[in-house]
Amino acid sequence: MNFTAEEAARLTGGKVYGNSDTVISGVARIEEAKEGDITFLYHSSYEKYFKSTKATAIFIKPGFNKLRSDITYIEVDSPEKAFSEIIIKNFKPGYKLEGIDSTAFIHESAKAGKNLALGRNVIVSAGCKIGNNVRIFHNSVILDNVEIGDDSLIFQNVSIREKTIIGKKAIIHAGAVIGSDGFGFNPDENGVYQKIPQIGNVILKDEVEIGSGTTIDRAALGSTIIGNRTKIDNLVQIGHNVVVGEDTVISAQTGISGSCKIGSNCVIAGQVGIAGHLTIGDKVVLLAKSGITKSLLKPGYYFGYPAKELKVSHRLEAHIRNLPAYSEKIKELELEVKRLSKLAIKD
Amino acid sequence: MNFTAEEAARLTGGKVYGNSDTVISGVARIEEAKEGDITFLYHSSYEKYFKSTKATAIFIKPGFNKLRSDITYIEVDSPEKAFSEIIIKNFKPGYKLEGIDSTAFIHESAKAGKNLALGRNVIVSAGCKIGNNVRIFHNSVILDNVEIGDDSLIFQNVSIREKTIIGKKAIIHAGAVIGSDGFGFNPDENGVYQKIPQIGNVILKDEVEIGSGTTIDRAALGSTIIGNRTKIDNLVQIGHNVVVGEDTVISAQTGISGSCKIGSNCVIAGQVGIAGHLTIGDKVVLLAKSGITKSLLKPGYYFGYPAKELKVSHRLEAHIRNLPAYSEKIKELELEVKRLSKLAIKD
Amino acid sequence: MNFTAEEAARLTGGKVYGNSDTVISGVARIEEAKEGDITFLYHSSYEKYFKSTKATAIFIKPGFNKLRSDITYIEVDSPEKAFSEIIIKNFKPGYKLEGIDSTAFIHESAKAGKNLALGRNVIVSAGCKIGNNVRIFHNSVILDNVEIGDDSLIFQNVSIREKTIIGKKAIIHAGAVIGSDGFGFNPDENGVYQKIPQIGNVILKDEVEIGSGTTIDRAALGSTIIGNRTKIDNLVQIGHNVVVGEDTVISAQTGISGSCKIGSNCVIAGQVGIAGHLTIGDKVVLLAKSGITKSLLKPGYYFGYPAKELKVSHRLEAHIRNLPAYSEKIKELELEVKRLSKLAIKD
Repeated sequence: MNFTAEEAARLTGGKVYGNSDTVISGVARIEEAKEGDITFLYHSSYEKYFKSTKATAIFIKPGFNKLRSDITYIEVDSPEKAFSEIIIKNFKPGYKLEGIDSTAFIHESAKAGKNLALGRNVIVSAGCKIGNNVRIFHNSVILDNVEIGDDSLIFQNVSIREKTIIGKKAIIHAGAVIGSDGFGFNPDENGVYQKIPQIGNVILKDEVEIGSGTTIDRAALGSTIIGNRTKIDNLVQIGHNVVVGEDTVISAQTGISGSCKIGSNCVIAGQVGIAGHLTIGDKVVLLAKSGITKSLLKPGYYFGYPAKELKVSHRLEAHIRNLPAYSEKIKELELEVKRLSKLAIKD
Repeated sequence: MNFTAEEAARLTGGKVYGNSDTVISGVARIEEAKEGDITFLYHSSYEKYFKSTKATAIFIKPGFNKLRSDITYIEVDSPEKAFSEIIIKNFKPGYKLEGIDSTAFIHESAKAGKNLALGRNVIVSAGCKIGNNVRIFHNSVILDNVEIGDDSLIFQNVSIREKTIIGKKAIIHAGAVIGSDGFGFNPDENGVYQKIPQIGNVILKDEVEIGSGTTIDRAALGSTIIGNRTKIDNLVQIGHNVVVGEDTVISAQTGISGSCKIGSNCVIAGQVGIAGHLTIGDKVVLLAKSGITKSLLKPGYYFGYPAKELKVSHRLEAHIRNLPAYSEKIKELELEVKRLSKLAIKD
Repeated sequence: MNFTAEEAARLTGGKVYGNSDTVISGVARIEEAKEGDITFLYHSSYEKYFKSTKATAIFIKPGFNKLRSDITYIEVDSPEKAFSEIIIKNFKPGYKLEGIDSTAFIHESAKAGKNLALGRNVIVSAGCKIGNNVRIFHNSVILDNVEIGDDSLIFQNVSIREKTIIGKKAIIHAGAVIGSDGFGFNPDENGVYQKIPQIGNVILKDEVEIGSGTTIDRAALGSTIIGNRTKIDNLVQIGHNVVVGEDTVISAQTGISGSCKIGSNCVIAGQVGIAGHLTIGDKVVLLAKSGITKSLLKPGYYFGYPAKELKVSHRLEAHIRNLPAYSEKIKELELEVKRLSKLAIKD
């Protein structure tokens, strides 16, 4: 996808210094750019690469010292944002898939909208309702009575169990498993675990994104729900009957136990664990590896295991680092007190 | 699946108050129930939903105040248990799969019992022995010489490597990988890791359940073994040569390193990590996120990293929360002791 | 694969005591060996099994007391190494797969070398370049423009996204996902996350091994790179733009956040988490479950969360275990100082 510096400037509201007709054919970070690439410079720590970059064009902030004459400058307020706009306009991946492959299977009772694209060996089972412009890549399996909204994209080797409902513009990455049985067992009188039937489903609302290898269990009763525009990273586990709000992000390898309610606009970092039946309020930020053992309703940052408000955690961590000093102090005090006690007795 | 209140009462040993002929067509939690549903009320915290529930029938305990006349009551000793019996009898998922799809492949040397059901694109390789009433969903792959016992159920996109032995009534959820190579390497004289051939296998005994995305590695030599009726959640990692006992449950994202022996009737919570070659005795409970660094033979609750007996962990955690107070106390003591020392010198 | 004790001795540089013509047909650990097996004895803790082992032959160290006459001894300097040599020579798994199955698909624009083996339903998409002797097992999906080097082995249900480059002699286990989108979003002015296009790729260098269910994300720009001979276990998450050096091992369920640089010859244990944009130097060892929050450049052992040098972590852990004693001491000191203060006042 080739374009000129002039076109890049027009798209990003920038001003060209140098050759406006320079042709740009790629994007790259400043230290990796090669001829034909446009790059960007937004933080002074990257200026060291400016002298040697092979980029053909570069987004810069006003005031940048344009020492090199063999490069075309585009001055913008936010080089980072401008660079991102160029990528979205010219290099956004198409995830191209067209038509229904002859090896794909659609059950006769399934309904589909316009422009359905199914890769090789895809299975769309009985009673499914698929919207317009849906793409499902190779070897993915959609079981009975699943609904998938318009413009959704499902990558390869994905498993969607029966009755799952997926909204519009959802993206589900390779190897994810949506709607498996929740982990529910009751020990009988002999301590033998009896399976509790998991007869609910999973609902993914609009514009949800689910990472590779992530597993979202169906509800025992009712629905496990992921709210609009919530983004979930790879290898995350969402237990049965969990409800996650809108515009929340959940990073890799985090686990949310059954029946938790997670708010909207939360940020949950990687490898966090949340115990069952808890409520996490809106705008809560949970730092990496935290273990949540009680509900956290107040917006703010939490950290540690058991998780505490961030400043409390930091203070305790500082105290822990001081333990050798405290121990030393206690020893000194003991000696001095012993000495004073002896003096007191003498008196 | 429709049935009457009378039939529900007969199944659960309850007594009907109201219309015995009321037809029930669904089950739901009290706050989500709609017309036609039966629900249950077992804990007083849910009584707030009674006034407004749209359920048609409800399991209640003796003594409940039957204020509404537009609902049918079924009085039982345990509403929870009765509700569960109704689900198991009338709503248990069938995981229906029938016949051998024309796109499934069975090697000519493989043997299978009665009522084998293979979904689309399933592969059953050379030398496999499959029991009666086995169902294997779409796109799952069974490599050479695998044995699967009667009534076992394998969901879609599952990978079973060669020589794995699976007992009767096992359930393996979508995307699980059974029998991959263990992570075994020896650094040679140059520090380059050389692969140790992993020539053992995996044995899953009867009524084992394996979660989505879980990985169970084959033994280097001999067998990795999961005992009868043990249930394993999603995204769990079981290393090579691990042996797990019977009636144990292992929650999501836990990792058990190679050559561990885990007892029977254990409960291992989520995100636990167990170092290699350790022994965990029977009836041990490991709380979430614990890190196990030495063998734990005595039944009981353990927690923390390194894991300690639960009460020890709780006591230490309380002390850690007290560290700011201790630090303050030490400072006060220092001042007071300094003052006393000066006085003593004056004397 | 049958061979004689004489042949085993010749291969391992050992000396036979007993019947050189004894035929060996298997390998096993001493406690599990049956007739026909060769086993080994390298550590005195296993000598208890010697009396009863059913092995036909055994590797022993010089000086071992050869009490039994019904077993053939092969004396070697390192019984463990000799045993391993026998396995590699005679029992190494073949991972046999031959020819291109009629249900496999290769796009007409894809190129492949000699001896390509594709299992059932494998998909090799447009523009792929596959080397010699590559084997790809059933139901794996290779998207557009992927390169795979000679002698590489890809197990079943693997997903390789577009533009991934895989070196020679790589092994990718079942269910792994290589090249999925990195987890990159920018909140817009309304706090709604907008997807940052992930237009880079993944490069796995030569002799890399990737475990089951592991996910390696493509770079936002440029490449996520795994260096030569690096071995990654199951269910590991590697974020976008991570660069891992050579001869490093990463154990199960570890997560490495975006843009980290990991050195060569590192050992990263299980369930470790590394925050984004950090640098881990060569020869760094990170113990299990550690949380890395700042760069660690110096070779050595690190542990804990936040991770500290191992000896520092151990010292702090000892202090934490002592907290009840410290608390007691502080109370005693308080009492004694109060007593002394009163005496001082009286004076």
